[in-house]
Amino acid sequence: MRGFASDNYAGVHPEVLAAIALANGGHQVSYGADVYTQALQEVFRAHFGPAAEVFPVFNGTGANVTALQAVTERWGAVICADSAHINTDECGAPERMGGLKLLTVPTPDGKLTPGLIDRQAYGLDDEHRAQPQVLSITQSTELGTLYTPEEITAICDHAHELGLTVHMDGSRIANAAAALGVPMARFTTDAGVDLLSFGGTKNGLLLGECVVVLRPEGVRSIRYLRKMSMQLASKMRFVSVQFEALLAGDLWLRSAAHANAMARRLEQAVRGIDGVSVVRPVQANAVFALLPREVSERLQKRYRFYFWNEATGEVRWMCSFDTTEADVDGFAAAIAEEMAA
Amino acid sequence: MRGFASDNYAGVHPEVLAAIALANGGHQVSYGADVYTQALQEVFRAHFGPAAEVFPVFNGTGANVTALQAVTERWGAVICADSAHINTDECGAPERMGGLKLLTVPTPDGKLTPGLIDRQAYGLDDEHRAQPQVLSITQSTELGTLYTPEEITAICDHAHELGLTVHMDGSRIANAAAALGVPMARFTTDAGVDLLSFGGTKNGLLLGECVVVLRPEGVRSIRYLRKMSMQLASKMRFVSVQFEALLAGDLWLRSAAHANAMARRLEQAVRGIDGVSVVRPVQANAVFALLPREVSERLQKRYRFYFWNEATGEVRWMCSFDTTEADVDGFAAAIAEEMAA
Amino acid sequence: MRGFASDNYAGVHPEVLAAIALANGGHQVSYGADVYTQALQEVFRAHFGPAAEVFPVFNGTGANVTALQAVTERWGAVICADSAHINTDECGAPERMGGLKLLTVPTPDGKLTPGLIDRQAYGLDDEHRAQPQVLSITQSTELGTLYTPEEITAICDHAHELGLTVHMDGSRIANAAAALGVPMARFTTDAGVDLLSFGGTKNGLLLGECVVVLRPEGVRSIRYLRKMSMQLASKMRFVSVQFEALLAGDLWLRSAAHANAMARRLEQAVRGIDGVSVVRPVQANAVFALLPREVSERLQKRYRFYFWNEATGEVRWMCSFDTTEADVDGFAAAIAEEMAA
Amino acid sequence: MRGFASDNYAGVHPEVLAAIALANGGHQVSYGADVYTQALQEVFRAHFGPAAEVFPVFNGTGANVTALQAVTERWGAVICADSAHINTDECGAPERMGGLKLLTVPTPDGKLTPGLIDRQAYGLDDEHRAQPQVLSITQSTELGTLYTPEEITAICDHAHELGLTVHMDGSRIANAAAALGVPMARFTTDAGVDLLSFGGTKNGLLLGECVVVLRPEGVRSIRYLRKMSMQLASKMRFVSVQFEALLAGDLWLRSAAHANAMARRLEQAVRGIDGVSVVRPVQANAVFALLPREVSERLQKRYRFYFWNEATGEVRWMCSFDTTEADVDGFAAAIAEEMAA
Repeated sequence: MRGFASDNYAGVHPEVLAAIALANGGHQVSYGADVYTQALQEVFRAHFGPAAEVFPVFNGTGANVTALQAVTERWGAVICADSAHINTDECGAPERMGGLKLLTVPTPDGKLTPGLIDRQAYGLDDEHRAQPQVLSITQSTELGTLYTPEEITAICDHAHELGLTVHMDGSRIANAAAALGVPMARFTTDAGVDLLSFGGTKNGLLLGECVVVLRPEGVRSIRYLRKMSMQLASKMRFVSVQFEALLAGDLWLRSAAHANAMARRLEQAVRGIDGVSVVRPVQANAVFALLPREVSERLQKRYRFYFWNEATGEVRWMCSFDTTEADVDGFAAAIAEEMAA
Repeated sequence: MRGFASDNYAGVHPEVLAAIALANGGHQVSYGADVYTQALQEVFRAHFGPAAEVFPVFNGTGANVTALQAVTERWGAVICADSAHINTDECGAPERMGGLKLLTVPTPDGKLTPGLIDRQAYGLDDEHRAQPQVLSITQSTELGTLYTPEEITAICDHAHELGLTVHMDGSRIANAAAALGVPMARFTTDAGVDLLSFGGTKNGLLLGECVVVLRPEGVRSIRYLRKMSMQLASKMRFVSVQFEALLAGDLWLRSAAHANAMARRLEQAVRGIDGVSVVRPVQANAVFALLPREVSERLQKRYRFYFWNEATGEVRWMCSFDTTEADVDGFAAAIAEEMAA
Repeated sequence: MRGFASDNYAGVHPEVLAAIALANGGHQVSYGADVYTQALQEVFRAHFGPAAEVFPVFNGTGANVTALQAVTERWGAVICADSAHINTDECGAPERMGGLKLLTVPTPDGKLTPGLIDRQAYGLDDEHRAQPQVLSITQSTELGTLYTPEEITAICDHAHELGLTVHMDGSRIANAAAALGVPMARFTTDAGVDLLSFGGTKNGLLLGECVVVLRPEGVRSIRYLRKMSMQLASKMRFVSVQFEALLAGDLWLRSAAHANAMARRLEQAVRGIDGVSVVRPVQANAVFALLPREVSERLQKRYRFYFWNEATGEVRWMCSFDTTEADVDGFAAAIAEEMAA
Repeated sequence: MRGFASDNYAGVHPEVLAAIALANGGHQVSYGADVYTQALQEVFRAHFGPAAEVFPVFNGTGANVTALQAVTERWGAVICADSAHINTDECGAPERMGGLKLLTVPTPDGKLTPGLIDRQAYGLDDEHRAQPQVLSITQSTELGTLYTPEEITAICDHAHELGLTVHMDGSRIANAAAALGVPMARFTTDAGVDLLSFGGTKNGLLLGECVVVLRPEGVRSIRYLRKMSMQLASKMRFVSVQFEALLAGDLWLRSAAHANAMARRLEQAVRGIDGVSVVRPVQANAVFALLPREVSERLQKRYRFYFWNEATGEVRWMCSFDTTEADVDGFAAAIAEEMAA
């Protein structure tokens, strides 16, 4: 049963699977001293600049927790949106595994601003308060919205003035770049982001994310943190080669742009249906909508998707690299049918 | 360059890779509600009995830390050999991520006995002492040795009398079963083991281990622990299907038996070389040897392997599913040559 | 220099100091097996009912973190007001030391309600979400407000229906009881509170708080948690005897009632001063006020007190057991003078 | 009932109690900005040199965990004797609360040497191994033995060459100085110790230990670590003034020298009793002895003391500042009686 539940429901892009098979020739040194992981450094530097260093890990939570530990003292805190994945969807791993305190800010669109950051960036030098040391933003956000490069630049400037390191959760960074029509460096390295969780799984990999250090000053050793955070793959070549397949050419961009286009197509299709409202800007590959709960429940028997907010009945529809126009059109037709039923 | 450094230097068994490709058809529910992960339950039950429950994770450290948290209170401690992987090779993840205290026992062959366990199984009810709640053993051990089923039964009986839960680090469990010539249940479920870290990566998987609950009483929810320990794969089908390929037929046994046979072949080949001594029983897929350090260093330019103990000069030679007779014979010849040089 | 900065600026009540001296006769068993700690059980049971069990600790953060660990699984979360001491003033100890996730709710008066609790009491059985298992409320609150017994009963009923355990941070519990004019049990044991951090330091002790288990079901062993949380006093008699001095008679009530009366006196005195506004209900021993920042800064040279909110200029004035009428009157006169200057 | 169970069974030295009473005059700033804590800096510098910085905390476990966190990265490990208090008597607080890995070395007399340190000081730069970053020694040791200043100097030199910071658990540091007949600086600051847990409780305080930074380079902020480790006293003056009473004059030395002398007296008295053997050198205030278990059990009904090792029947007799010659003589007579019974 196909659906719009999550970009994690999709499988592996065929080019990625082919790369895995190609990497399966004979022995390679384990734990990242293989030729694929070595080569990956250059691949990432082509995208993120010559200072970038990349550390493949298993999943997004692992990337976030590894990265955030690398830029906080033991008493440090991370300012983030209250809708941030690290706050809502990681079962407390940042706190429990990373020993991190999250200082959350309510924000209706999932985006922070200098003003919102200031609501938590106080109490420096007060030993009773977990010390704000990192700002974490998500691009594209958990609510399907985007920061412009200028917005991120302003945020980074402000954060750096406050002495904060800037981390980006880039679980869907490719969707952001595709939507903005700029290179990824434009809103990361060039905008002042220090450290990045680079997402692969949601953009067609079998499995894999990367911690990418963009500005190495002040970043503690990722090597040890990755191992102790249980994120060190022994046969790392098979994670690394996937990222090479994704990033050496334009697969990352083709896949993300397609997912975004499918979300826009879905948005347009449902805008014409009475009783269905798209409740957030559709800027990447997510559509958030309100429709009668019983309609949603009938629809869920035909297409997989989730309620985003049980209380309000808001639903989330995600598109992925393998969402087809036929999927979208069929789903839109089903929505229309169920609304009319 | 081929070698004998680690069973992690090998790639993916072709049957496993084929299974991954087969699983790549369309959408599947993420986070383990896919058909492959569901089917895996039965696969594991066929091996480990009807009470077994299986939870795929990313790597061995992740499996161990997830499992051990599930059977300890916050103040609990784990008795293990001082050579246990959890003590020596996980960068403190059990302590830091799991909040576990390890109570280690020196043991020359990597194996514990009821008597050795007693050296740490005291101080129950003393609030100053981290409370021994779990016993963790490794089969086959980090030193290439094996417990017999009877030894494990005796250990489990003793541990249970002391109120300890028994965890097995089965990173190389298949090699153990192949060497002992018994089903895996014989020295796990049937012997009284409560909880298992089941290894796949070292036996030909791309990546993947499983936490297997054998006796569910007293085991806290693995589901939450796996997520918060950063071990929950979103596209879990691609981890699960590998284990299906390994375990539904006899691939696990073929691969492990082959690796073991190659280790024995290597042992026999080097026993005839003057100045080389095999210093531990070769019971699974590892050979530990002593030879002149400068010979080892010359050999390392031709074949990859590691010093096991820098102080004594002991080296470790691992065989894997893809080690060939030609590899072994070539390596043995090289050893003879370098010894003679 | 006397002042209104904190109830921690006060010293030790003479009756408490006398009790310490009396306890200094000869040897006592350490770590709580002394006669004073044994006797304290009965003292607490007289206040909190026959099921109460008391565990003296060092400070409030220690009491809170010890208590909260005792009622959460490793994956558990604690719902609390965003102004709760555990969230704002413990340098992340609950997260870092206790491995706890806090799920915070904004509330203008520091108080939660069933409706506010519901804003975080969702996602049960969703492994991605830290599982709400505890509700923590503060009485009197960090904002100087009070819950009525009925409000707490309603909260506890609601929390228990949701499967949550109820913890009370009673750092100023005596002030609450004195203000409400009811026994402490009325809004704790009788209202359904499961677990209490009982405050002593702010009410005239040299040093000491207690974890008090009111309903033992579901509470994990405090003994081990206290020790591993670095809260186990070796010469515990000297902590316990202070609580005996406080609670065996009416010292707790006299001291708290006096502090409350001084706060009310201060409130009344400043209500008549133009340009000074009391911005929160004065229900216990705290007065929160707004006055021109430069006036506050001049005043701080004469009397110690803190800005509560640097952004708004709100100040907090605390009264303690040793605040005198002359202190209050002198301070009010100084405020009037500085306002007129 | 008097006894020889622990130096924690003793009460508060009268001079300490008097100092507490003197400090109880009026208001003082909380959390360490009081005049007593300020003055304490100079008191400690007089003993430990002009670079020393002192941070009062509640107990020994708190001092150790706070100190060790200050000199380890998140992936760091602490080398210590397997009999170290941090390993055996803190319920895993270093691991659980501090996120520390302990690398333990067996040592019969509780003392480490450069050679013993080397048994764990390897694997630097190996990400699989928790990285040795700190050496922790105890003076006097948990087994009642002493390091000479020369031994500590050699250990510190060796540790520093290895890149390790040196921490001393000085729970009984005064007993060591009294026994060695040298100033405390001689075997701490002057010998190369970087960081010290300074013990007060066992030497006649009501309650209190201090983290003392001797060489500030490489020490992370103790302030935040102390707070988040739940060791920050609000009315800190009452902890600090005890240390002033102890250290401003010679009370520390008088008390410790007396306790040591009582241990020697006890040793001499029992050396003459057939069937009782003193099994460890009596160098500070502890006597370890072997005698028939049933004799020990009868004796325990008359005098409090503990079995040190249940398996061997070894007992420990501790003397404290308040042990009298009559106590010792009475106890020795009782031992002789019970041996003869």
